[in-house]
Amino acid sequence: MQENYNVEELMELADSRQFRKLKDMLMEFNEVDIAAFIEALDSEKTVVVFRMLPKGLASDVFACLEVEKQEHIINSMTDHELGTIVEDLFVDDAVDMLEELPASVVKRVLRNATPDTRKLINQFLNYPENSAGSIMTAEYVGLKKNMTVMQAFDYIRLHGVDKETIYTCYVMDATRRLEGVVTVKDLLMNPYEVAIGDIMDTHVIKAVTTEDQEDVADSFRKYGLLSLPVVDHEERLVGIVTVDDVVDVMEQEATEDFEKMAAMIPSEKPYLKTSVFQLAKNRIMWLLVLMISSMVTGGILARYESAFAVIPLLVTFIPMLTDTGGNAGSQSSTMIIRGMAVGEIVTKDFFRVIFKELKVAIIVGVILGIVNYIRLIILYPGQEMLCLTVMLSLLITVIVAKTIGGVLPIAAKVFHMDPAIMAAPLITTIVDAVSLIIYFRLACKLLGL
Amino acid sequence: MQENYNVEELMELADSRQFRKLKDMLMEFNEVDIAAFIEALDSEKTVVVFRMLPKGLASDVFACLEVEKQEHIINSMTDHELGTIVEDLFVDDAVDMLEELPASVVKRVLRNATPDTRKLINQFLNYPENSAGSIMTAEYVGLKKNMTVMQAFDYIRLHGVDKETIYTCYVMDATRRLEGVVTVKDLLMNPYEVAIGDIMDTHVIKAVTTEDQEDVADSFRKYGLLSLPVVDHEERLVGIVTVDDVVDVMEQEATEDFEKMAAMIPSEKPYLKTSVFQLAKNRIMWLLVLMISSMVTGGILARYESAFAVIPLLVTFIPMLTDTGGNAGSQSSTMIIRGMAVGEIVTKDFFRVIFKELKVAIIVGVILGIVNYIRLIILYPGQEMLCLTVMLSLLITVIVAKTIGGVLPIAAKVFHMDPAIMAAPLITTIVDAVSLIIYFRLACKLLGL
Repeated sequence: MQENYNVEELMELADSRQFRKLKDMLMEFNEVDIAAFIEALDSEKTVVVFRMLPKGLASDVFACLEVEKQEHIINSMTDHELGTIVEDLFVDDAVDMLEELPASVVKRVLRNATPDTRKLINQFLNYPENSAGSIMTAEYVGLKKNMTVMQAFDYIRLHGVDKETIYTCYVMDATRRLEGVVTVKDLLMNPYEVAIGDIMDTHVIKAVTTEDQEDVADSFRKYGLLSLPVVDHEERLVGIVTVDDVVDVMEQEATEDFEKMAAMIPSEKPYLKTSVFQLAKNRIMWLLVLMISSMVTGGILARYESAFAVIPLLVTFIPMLTDTGGNAGSQSSTMIIRGMAVGEIVTKDFFRVIFKELKVAIIVGVILGIVNYIRLIILYPGQEMLCLTVMLSLLITVIVAKTIGGVLPIAAKVFHMDPAIMAAPLITTIVDAVSLIIYFRLACKLLGL
Repeated sequence: MQENYNVEELMELADSRQFRKLKDMLMEFNEVDIAAFIEALDSEKTVVVFRMLPKGLASDVFACLEVEKQEHIINSMTDHELGTIVEDLFVDDAVDMLEELPASVVKRVLRNATPDTRKLINQFLNYPENSAGSIMTAEYVGLKKNMTVMQAFDYIRLHGVDKETIYTCYVMDATRRLEGVVTVKDLLMNPYEVAIGDIMDTHVIKAVTTEDQEDVADSFRKYGLLSLPVVDHEERLVGIVTVDDVVDVMEQEATEDFEKMAAMIPSEKPYLKTSVFQLAKNRIMWLLVLMISSMVTGGILARYESAFAVIPLLVTFIPMLTDTGGNAGSQSSTMIIRGMAVGEIVTKDFFRVIFKELKVAIIVGVILGIVNYIRLIILYPGQEMLCLTVMLSLLITVIVAKTIGGVLPIAAKVFHMDPAIMAAPLITTIVDAVSLIIYFRLACKLLGL
């Protein structure tokens, strides 16, 4: 990794206002690292350092900054400077920024963009959130079928420099309908006089603007793509999605699943940037729902008050029973939810999953039951029926828990709900109630209560 | 997406043995889709269909097949055919395959590779698992500083066709020491007579062979790379990692985190391919550990037997209390574990995290407490002290749970343990014990037991 630059040294130069020397050193770095350095500066130095970057680099660095810094820099720029930055940004970066900025700043940004850029940005802002349209960029190389390889190279040399990816070129007819793709590799590997139409690949993997970004990510994963063309409902090419944006999407989707599976509403921003109130808001809803559900479990306990009034010892096995049941169920639901998220498990695998979980549950349940029985028979000699009750309850609980954990995520999918909500917290609550009913029923039967 | 092909139609052609027609139709597809089709065929037809693929396509399709199918096909091939396939595979795909195949099959594969390929594969197989070396490929374009752009193009045209990625070219000195990188975009944007040394970027982001693949993935994420050069400890270029492999790494790491966070040992293979015994083995260890830990909680309950012998009603609030505490703690630990996994939260954020979690806990705890108090005061009028006990216990439990959930993952990191084990199951078990102590202490005090 490029960790050989000395942040302290740069900071010292900034503090002692040796800006010329600082500039020379910064020029050696990648835009991502320059942005990370600027993030750490105070607001006055941010503007000074940013202004000394050369024009082209400035917009690259700008795209890497956090939205708060971007807002700060925008507010300190002249309209002319702002216009230059906006024109230099890739459309998808500009859209990302505008989605986060306050309305007044957005207005100023759009006012300073050229009409063409403004039109493009507005168009992108109108695609539904998390759709292919919302993450695409309009910067791609478009070719025609009757061009030769040589003409294609000339075209790329002339127009390609600010295209986000030039390695896949898109061949369109006069109405912008997508006809095929040709990679720069294809161009390099064919004689200069060959026509594009003869070497292009007409079996194009593509997405429609309104398609969900998760499906887009699936295509990248499945086919190992670097970019994917996005077409409208009339099959006309409107943009491309590039792999770097898809990497972000995949990461974001995984994070959302982690949050949902831990009973939270996914947050828009990273943890450290999310306010305390927003965090509390994201968490309280599910906590309330689950708290009220667990009162049902309390109600079940209340029904068996007479049982543990006679044998108070019964109560002490409750945490072991409900925790183990909850854990066993969460293991299963986590495997199934993740398997569905990466496309490995589909709804038609329902019965395979159930049988698999049943078999695993029996193996695991028997081992846990035996360990428990041995422990209890040593601790409470002579109380064989009590030990048997606990062991059997545990075995049945594990089997029921793993079945519930396997069934519910797939069932959720069938009913068009998000499988991720059928995760540990909800499974635990359900399994709690079920395991207590099993336990006390068995206890009443076997211990004659 | 390219879902317009009709699998049933293809299957019918295979069943009625119309292989010529089948071949013509298959030629229209992507290697990933052909592989998916072959996966669905029975073993005899697999070999027939695979053999009718043209040579180049055959190795691409082969790389996409599951290891069981690969083994089956290898066993049905002549040594000559096998040799051709192995030479055509990219080294990283060949290594992936060999890591999974049984030793006898591996021997046959290596015997049929040319000495050069065999040497390369063996070298790759020796890098530690999950290191940069283990996921890299040796197929890259290497240039020299004194070449011109024109000569570079000629070199690529001559040698580039079976390079995994030709879009970034690596410039090395005579001892293979990496001096810089130049992209095909740079080549396209510069005049033919310019020297590579003048346009190459000398600030190369690179990895060392022994570096962890997670760090490699972080670099791709951070800098939005398409490929990353891998050097040995003498700074000599030995291979490159490409973005498609990194996408797989990221996905695999996320899946492992999901599994660890649900108290499982991560499995090597996807769910449906993992045997029932392996699944049971992966799950039983943590279930046992957690079951035994939750017996401690049972022991705490036993100490307060006298309390709930007097007021059996106390028992019915236990599930609500422990579940809510567990959920509150899991929410916090999940956020922190994920934040650390994607590099947002680092150990020096310790105090920021704690204060944030404390504040969130107070807001959330107060709301939950009030809701609970209102419910209880309606259900059990006149029992203000009991209601107060439950409310206060809940508030304190939530605060303690969120603090534990925030502290433990970071503490794990400090002690060089995997933060992911400090997730829902372990947090729940710890919080269970703590919340019961708080509850019964408070009950004894406030209710005078």
